Parts: sequence; C-alpha cells; structure tokens
Amino acid sequence: MKTYYTGQTASFTKTIAESDVYLFAGITGDMNPVHINAEHASGTRFKGRIAHGILSAGLISNVLGTQLPGPGCVYLGQTLKFVAPVFIGDTITAKVTIQSIDTEKRRAILLTECKNHKNEIVITGEAKVLLP
Amino acid sequence: MKTYYTGQTASFTKTIAESDVYLFAGITGDMNPVHINAEHASGTRFKGRIAHGILSAGLISNVLGTQLPGPGCVYLGQTLKFVAPVFIGDTITAKVTIQSIDTEKRRAILLTECKNHKNEIVITGEAKVLLP
Repeated sequence: MKTYYTGQTASFTKTIAESDVYLFAGITGDMNPVHINAEHASGTRFKGRIAHGILSAGLISNVLGTQLPGPGCVYLGQTLKFVAPVFIGDTITAKVTIQSIDTEKRRAILLTECKNHKNEIVITGEAKVLLP
Repeated sequence: MKTYYTGQTASFTKTIAESDVYLFAGITGDMNPVHINAEHASGTRFKGRIAHGILSAGLISNVLGTQLPGPGCVYLGQTLKFVAPVFIGDTITAKVTIQSIDTEKRRAILLTECKNHKNEIVITGEAKVLLP
C-alpha cells in the first residue's frame, strides 16, 4: 500500500492547444463565444479566446486520479477559484499537495493549484478524496 | 441588458457517451483506469467505467456560459461535491439557480446541481460569477 504524508506533492504539465478547447466545447456543449469565437473574444476584457476554466480543473483531476493519491481514490469534492484566464498556447501545471490526512476515515484534503508558464496562479482550491 | 433575479434557472441535458469520456481523458491526460479500463473498473466499487467528475462539471460551465448568466459573465469560482457516480450512457441534467445577487458589485451566487435520468443528484455545489 502506498504511503501518504502531509506535504506530499505531484504535478502534471500540459500546453493547452486550440484542439483541447474545441473538443472540450464539443463534449460539454459549452459554446460560450469567449472560448470559440476569435472575433468576439478579441473584443472582450481578455482580448482573445480563453480556455474553459473547468478544462484546467481537469488537469487537477488527472493528478489526483493517476498520481496522488492515484487510482483507487474516490473524488469527493473540489473547490475552484478562477484567478486568471488561460489562453490557447499557455502551458499549465496542475500541482496537488496533501494538506491533511484523516487516517481513521481514510480521507485527505489536498491543496490544488494551476499555474501558467509565467508562474502566475490561474486556479486555486482544495480537493477532498477518499484514499485508496 | 438581460434581467436577473433570485430563483431564475436554466439547464442543459446530455447523455454521456463513451466518446465523451475518452476524449475528456485525452484532453486532460486523466487516464485513471476507472474511466478507461472496463476490466479494471468492473472490479471496483462502481462495477464499471465512470465518467470523470469534472466532465459533468463542464455541463454546469455550459449553462453558466451560454444561458444563465450567459456570454459575458466571468466565472469566478465553483464548489463541487461529487455525490454519486456518472456511468457511460447516463443522461445528465445540469441546472443552475440564482441564489443571490449583489447588484452593486454585479456578482451572483448560483446553486449548481447535476442529476441523472433517475433524478438522483450526482453533483451539487455553488458557482460565483460576475454578471455581464
């Protein structure tokens, strides 16, 4: 059995491609023009198309489900604060850090954070999981 | 300008296909076997492949970004409680309901809920947005 401890971290990095945003729009039906209409998006506060916030949250789910705690963990909850936009072409790192472990209930709380290639936080929040 | 009021709702319904789960796995890199390995998944508590929790959260993002509040709103935050699993073939309805509006700051809090075709809640939580 894998050992877990407070402060333990894992991460995953991906450059967000236009295809990621368009496929995500198709899967979820989220055709908000700020994601898929370059003409419209150029006139918004963001001055260009941005990725869906929940797409970056998917990178957090990746780290939780494949690395820490990894397969067998049950995702109980997630809080997300969308701090800054993610643009097509940005390289996003999702990092999770174990904050606390309830050994009896096999539950853990993890700090979950996404940063871009400029080291700016784009998402911050917390995950609750049942350990494998 | 669109009018917003407490209790206002909007929703979106989609049957979650195998292709949705596999594309989502590819986009996010979340290859947790419970999502993409039928042999493994049949031996888990779920007894079959389940969709990524964050995939269903994308249906909430859809409603917020395309209907209520709709294009021009800024997604500030989201809390998610994963209450029950979503299986491939389940028909999921994401519904958002305005809980409160801060007219001065143009902020709103919405109850966000996903239910399956059996009317069971699978995700519950809250969204914070800046109104258009």
